[in-house]
Amino acid sequence: MKPGGVDEAALAGGPWEECFEAAVQLALQAGQIIRKALTEEKRVSTKTSAVDLVTETDHLVENLIISELRKRFPSHRFIAEEATASGAKCVLTPSPTWIIDPIDGTCNFVHRFPTVAVSIGFAVHQELEFGVIYHCTEERLYTGQRGRGAFCNGQQLTVSRETDLSKALVLTEIGPKRDPATLRLFLSNMEHLLHAKAHGVRVIGSSTLALCHLASGAADAYYQFGLHCWDLAAATVIIREAGGIVMDTSGGPLDLMSCRVVAAGTREMAMLIAQALQTIDYGRDDEN
Amino acid sequence: MKPGGVDEAALAGGPWEECFEAAVQLALQAGQIIRKALTEEKRVSTKTSAVDLVTETDHLVENLIISELRKRFPSHRFIAEEATASGAKCVLTPSPTWIIDPIDGTCNFVHRFPTVAVSIGFAVHQELEFGVIYHCTEERLYTGQRGRGAFCNGQQLTVSRETDLSKALVLTEIGPKRDPATLRLFLSNMEHLLHAKAHGVRVIGSSTLALCHLASGAADAYYQFGLHCWDLAAATVIIREAGGIVMDTSGGPLDLMSCRVVAAGTREMAMLIAQALQTIDYGRDDEN
Repeated sequence: MKPGGVDEAALAGGPWEECFEAAVQLALQAGQIIRKALTEEKRVSTKTSAVDLVTETDHLVENLIISELRKRFPSHRFIAEEATASGAKCVLTPSPTWIIDPIDGTCNFVHRFPTVAVSIGFAVHQELEFGVIYHCTEERLYTGQRGRGAFCNGQQLTVSRETDLSKALVLTEIGPKRDPATLRLFLSNMEHLLHAKAHGVRVIGSSTLALCHLASGAADAYYQFGLHCWDLAAATVIIREAGGIVMDTSGGPLDLMSCRVVAAGTREMAMLIAQALQTIDYGRDDEN
Repeated sequence: MKPGGVDEAALAGGPWEECFEAAVQLALQAGQIIRKALTEEKRVSTKTSAVDLVTETDHLVENLIISELRKRFPSHRFIAEEATASGAKCVLTPSPTWIIDPIDGTCNFVHRFPTVAVSIGFAVHQELEFGVIYHCTEERLYTGQRGRGAFCNGQQLTVSRETDLSKALVLTEIGPKRDPATLRLFLSNMEHLLHAKAHGVRVIGSSTLALCHLASGAADAYYQFGLHCWDLAAATVIIREAGGIVMDTSGGPLDLMSCRVVAAGTREMAMLIAQALQTIDYGRDDEN
């Protein structure tokens, strides 16, 4: 299952250093394209639908990242948002696998709301090795490599040590389903946390950037139903390397394909959040 | 009611240009202090309560701004968050009046969640003349002067022209009251907008910066119950100068002291939001 053509193990920085460097370069390059698209949208927004627009840039960025990585690492596999939407299987095998969200914060991107990121995760033997997330407009590069810490623009990240829910800032996202039953569960979960006197709940429209805020210690917990493995993969490494916890909403181990997550700076906080939540069923990424 | 000591009308840039320039300088200076406090908090967060901390910086910044303005414009009046909390009257007279929020996004500030702003508004004869809002961590300076446009770091701002709620990105804030009845109304309002298929609802934890996003065209509407005149004053000028609408949640004219607001890029959108909302009673700023 070693990648073809390159002996990564021989590199000083670790076995997957070359892959990590490629991810950083591509995230920065993708970020440039997205920043440009954000300004251009102003000019074209009345000519074409917002959804067409974002699909164009999504595809452009995803194709750029995958084609470049395929050239350099021809034996690797890919799980990516747009390819999956077009019918590609979403299965994590033991092979080196790139897990990519070309634009996280799609709705923000369409509206030019400046909270938009590129997310590139990498797993081998079903274990996450590194994650790279680039906040396109604020030019913040978040990285985490297993066993080597998490950083934002070179500064090491550390999670909050808060264990008291009544002192917590909690982040979540609404999720794509808007039927009455799902909405009611989403709002009921938010109500439980506000009743428990969480300091506040924030909804910023980008799962990956919310998870980066958590890794930075700027929030104490995050939960969501209805996100995907490409929202979670890179951020999970970054949070764990910043000292945080990423788990299933049941309180058990994280299942990257389960479309649900609780993350927190401490296990105590993660468990308090998990216990407060009612499950919203979004199926699984690997069963669609 | 003309300010003492300075003949503003004689200045080339307009009658209140000197006041506007002072507001810009003080907002930038305050932003520096807040940025520094955000990093220092990491070191002291285990020694003192988060609330004490923020109060210290709040007071420091508010006192800096007011003492400087009082020196330069001795006849002017002030409405400011911390002074009001300490019992000062919150009444808008015809006198030139500064309306100041030293740190908007208090809960964010406590958690080092990087969405924090200084807001300085200025009214004469009860009419808002200019507003200055400084996003401390992203170093974005939003300004609006009546009749002279709105800008962010020198770039002119224009609101979204969206009139269709089903294509809207809507911003709101939770508000300070957390009793069950208030929470239920807050969540019910959010539910109505999501049922109406608004693209998304965002809660970023700073009313003034949410209103600046609206002024920038990055969101289509904003509503809130439970905000204060110092959250609204500066932002109202900026939104109006960017072409947007700021009104009461009833659909009538804005009442700066009413603790409630709807803002949007278009009147149609503002009315759609106003019609969807159930009122949450927060009293009035000038009756406490």
